[in-house]
Order: sequence, then C-alpha cells, then structure tokens
Amino acid sequence: MSVRDLGEFPLISRITAGLRLGQGVWVGPGDDAAMVSVPQNSRMLLTCDVMVEGVHFLSTADPTDVGFKLMTANISDIAAMGGEPLYALVALVLPADTEVRWVDLLYNGIRICAEKHGVSVVGGDVSSGSSITLSVALVGCVDPDRFLLRSGARPGDVVMVTGALGAAQVGLELHTGSLSAYGILAEQALSRHLRPSPRVDEGKALAALGCRAANDISDGLASEAWEIAEASKVALYIEAERVPIHPSVSLCAHDSRTALDYALTSGEEYELLFTIPESAVEANPDSLAGCYRIGTVREGRGAYLQRGGTVEPLGRGHTHFDSGGGSPGKE
Amino acid sequence: MSVRDLGEFPLISRITAGLRLGQGVWVGPGDDAAMVSVPQNSRMLLTCDVMVEGVHFLSTADPTDVGFKLMTANISDIAAMGGEPLYALVALVLPADTEVRWVDLLYNGIRICAEKHGVSVVGGDVSSGSSITLSVALVGCVDPDRFLLRSGARPGDVVMVTGALGAAQVGLELHTGSLSAYGILAEQALSRHLRPSPRVDEGKALAALGCRAANDISDGLASEAWEIAEASKVALYIEAERVPIHPSVSLCAHDSRTALDYALTSGEEYELLFTIPESAVEANPDSLAGCYRIGTVREGRGAYLQRGGTVEPLGRGHTHFDSGGGSPGKE
Repeated sequence: MSVRDLGEFPLISRITAGLRLGQGVWVGPGDDAAMVSVPQNSRMLLTCDVMVEGVHFLSTADPTDVGFKLMTANISDIAAMGGEPLYALVALVLPADTEVRWVDLLYNGIRICAEKHGVSVVGGDVSSGSSITLSVALVGCVDPDRFLLRSGARPGDVVMVTGALGAAQVGLELHTGSLSAYGILAEQALSRHLRPSPRVDEGKALAALGCRAANDISDGLASEAWEIAEASKVALYIEAERVPIHPSVSLCAHDSRTALDYALTSGEEYELLFTIPESAVEANPDSLAGCYRIGTVREGRGAYLQRGGTVEPLGRGHTHFDSGGGSPGKE
Repeated sequence: MSVRDLGEFPLISRITAGLRLGQGVWVGPGDDAAMVSVPQNSRMLLTCDVMVEGVHFLSTADPTDVGFKLMTANISDIAAMGGEPLYALVALVLPADTEVRWVDLLYNGIRICAEKHGVSVVGGDVSSGSSITLSVALVGCVDPDRFLLRSGARPGDVVMVTGALGAAQVGLELHTGSLSAYGILAEQALSRHLRPSPRVDEGKALAALGCRAANDISDGLASEAWEIAEASKVALYIEAERVPIHPSVSLCAHDSRTALDYALTSGEEYELLFTIPESAVEANPDSLAGCYRIGTVREGRGAYLQRGGTVEPLGRGHTHFDSGGGSPGKE
C-alpha cells in the first residue's frame, strides 16, 4: 500500500498513534502546534537537521536505520552543547508512491532513538514531493551556567575526544559495497554507521566538569577542529600519534589513505571533540577515563596536525554543493 | 552565481549575516544549536511547516513571496493557539545550480515576515537535493491559563471568523494565470495570496476574551470546521448567508463554483476560525467588532452547512497524496 492509497490524514493518524509522549507534553500532535513545559531556570536549545534520499541515505537503506540516524544527528547537536534533548518535530516530504511500510519503519527508527534519550515527538508536517526529504527540529534545555560552545576554547586548554574514530566511514564503505569484509570489526563498523549513538551523558558530564567548548563530530574531526578554532579565535594543535583510531579501520586503510586519514575525516561519528582546562583534567581523572587527549589549544588561528617534528594545517574535507559531490550517506 | 559556485559555508555565512537576533537569543546561528531564553511561567508552543517547489509554490514564484508565506504559515499556527511566536529554525534543500540570488530573496521574505512579528531566525540547516524543499520549525510561548485548542469547542458556543474569505483562492488563480483581472480587487486578492498575514494579535486577544477553540484557515473553512468538530466531539453548524465573502470573489465566482464555494474552500487564508461562549461575545462587543459570527456549536458530531431550511455536511476538500493532485500553491 502506498501513501497515495492510504491518504494524508490516515497516514498522519497512523504515524502519531505509535508515539509515546513524555512528561511535560500538554498538547501533542493533532493541533495547530504542540504545547509543552520546559524546566524552570533553564535555557532552551534549538537545532534542526535535514536528510535527503540519495544525498544522506541510499534509497535501498533500511528505513529504521534512516529514522534512527536522523534522530541521532539532532540529539547529538544538543549533546554538543551539554544539554538535555526534550521535544522533536518531524517534517516528511514523500513521493505519493512511497510504501506506507517504509514510513512505518522510518518512524520505528525515530521512536527507538527518541525514547532511548527521553525525547517526545510532539508534532510535524507531511507533504507530497518528488524525493524523500526528512527534517527534524529538536528542542532541548541546558543549565544557564553549564554549557558548551564552539567559541569556548582558550589557549592552554587540552583537546580531547570521547571515543575512537574512523568506524563510521568504514561502515559506510561496507554498506555501499565499496569494501567487503566480515567479522566482529566489520560488524562494529556497520553498526556505528547505521545506528550511531549521540553522547548526551558525556556532554552533560563535560559541562559539569568545567569544559566550555565542544563540537559533535558530524563532518570529521578535522572539520570540527577548524570550526572550534575559528569560533574561539585560537589554534588547535592535534598530535597525530594521539588520535584514537577505531580497530575496524585496519580493514581498509592503505598507503594512499592511511588509518589516520580515516580518523581525521570520518563523518557521522557523533563522538564529541572538546577542549577543557588542564586543571579540570587533573581534578577529574576518573570522569575523563573514557576520553582521549589528542592535543592542545594555543594562541593563534587555525587547526594543525603535529607529526614528528612537522606541523601542517588540517585538511577540511567535503561540503555540500561541491562539484565533486559526496557519496550518499557521507554527509 | 549558483550555490555550487559559492559553496556551503559561504552560503551559510551569507544567509546568517543578514539576520537580526532579538532579545532572548544567547547563541544564534553558527553553533551546534541555538540557545534562547523563554518567558518564565509560560508554556512553549512548537510547530513546523514544509513547502516544496512544484507542490506549494511555482518555480517561477518570486522567492521573497515564498519566504514570506513560509514564515506566515508557521506564525499562523502559533496565532491559532493564542500564542506569541519567538524563534525559528530554517532548513533548506537546494539543487546545486540554484542561484544565490534566489536564496538571498527567499531569506529577504523570511526576514520581512519574521521581523514584523518579532521572530528571530536562530539557526537552520542546508543540504543539496534534487528539488527545492523548505522547512521551518517555530517556537512560541503561551500563557498557561489562556490558550486556544481545536478540542475546546463546547455546545452553545458561537462560531466566528476573523475576516472575509475567498481572496487567497482568487489570488492563486490570478497568479497561476487561470484567471485574468485587473483593478483594486484583483490587487487585494493577489496580495492575500502572495503576502498573507498571520493573525497573532487576534489570537492573543481571543484567548484573553475567553475563547477556547480556534484553527487557522490554511486548508479552507470547511476543512478547519471539521477538525474543530472532530477534536471537540461536537457539531459545528455554519449558516451559509453569514459566511463573509471577500469582494474579490466576484471576479471569478460563477454558477458551478459559487462565491460561497470559494469562501468555504479557499486555503492559505490564515484568518482564524474560532468558537467562543455566547456570554463572552455579549461581554466584549467592541473587541469582536472586526469578526463575523457565522454559526453555532451544538451537541453531535461533524460540520454542517445550513442554507434556508436545509442542512448538509460540509465538503472537506483537497489533501496531500490525492491522485487528483492540487495545483501548486494550493496547499
């Protein structure tokens, strides 16, 4: 059955019937707007992400994975501010011949990820269109005295990352068939690509420890390092031998694209890149046990890679509208 | 110059450079999420609307008008809850060959409408894609004791509307060329179609007067009457001779599609359809001077048209995914 066969209003009823509304939702889907409460004495965080078939995901992708990642991408933006995700709006553009089952599975993925992080889907919009386009807007909250900004890095800070990198890119190559491999490492990489986890607890913990600057790694470590450096008007120096590389990268790294290249450019990792005063690191060794120290912040401008005695600017990587284009699932 | 020539990050800088951030915005565009304050002791309203080229607007439409209407559609949803619009997120999907000038003009329209209503555009997302798709998510606030719901209509309430109807449909027909006319009425109709105004002040005033149920007329009076009736589990009776018809409808109404048909089905009017206790109407004659009384709420279910001695169910009109399709600009 296609969405044309079902019709707009029955489709909306079907979608919204399965949603679980959490505390704080006074009016959920079905009115002109949703009505929600937000915690007293907090500030609100607002973010949105759009995913397009053929650009962000393949038409053959499992829609449950697509929905899961769509929600992860948004929740990760709240995590990177040190906040708590609360409420989501989901706008769908669907060709009329889209299978209703596809939409069911998409929402299944959205729901699994949203419920895992306490997010209520409180509304949305549905339209016909020539290709599948999914947008999510997410509202979160944050303690007005504890938050993470791109512009918060200061000379003397330590640069750290919450986990090993590269597996999302390996998973993408496995998923699109440009790489063939089996076994536990391949499974880990695929899982990282298809069902990435946002680092919400880590973001809140970092803000509480005195960290003031973070980015989630959606476009690759190198690109995020540049963004923090530019917003903070500082220089980030990353030490090549300290960058944590996920073991699955060994499945595909080679001389012309090294394991380090993978770790620096792999997008959709959703680990947090952050900078934190040295004093906070020394005061909280246990809390930062799972994190990797990869460099330092200095006076200056830009993002640099230190390797042996040499220093070179980090390459920034792919952006939208590049003539070269990105492979679907990359951005 | 196309957005491919300019590139993603310069495009984002160009868009955000022209945005004016109002009070309450701590962090605007450029970080992982925006950070904003919301008034103490209020509840938040959340809504989103998506517009697709070829479905909601013609590729030849003036992008300033497109941006203006995109923002109006969202603000109108907040108005229909009796709330105050505050913060917007804008997600753009653009083919790489889209002219940068088109995007500039789109944002010009978004900005004009947003600033008129005190809305700050605090963030968004940009992606490449095969057709232009625009989504806006809007955050507003509302007094927790004074708000308008679809489900708030009660038997005995009076049914009213904030203005005369039909001009948006006349304007659409003029715009698409299916109708040819000149003069002041044609200009009024075109303006209603291209630059519709959300009824924010009216919505807040109605909530303060004791009104408890409203819908903004985005899909036509008949469709909105059905939605209120179903959500409130009541029957709405609309008196045919009381429905206010915009004078421009005289330019195109004829025997097989009467002036009343126009007024009942014209979408994107953005007037408010509301129900209010008779006692509140009697107590506030001046405040409701600009509004039209068009019917009554009774026990029962559904939305009906009373004409002379006859009563018939109101037709619901077009939805998305209909095989018949709607003309661009209609939905």
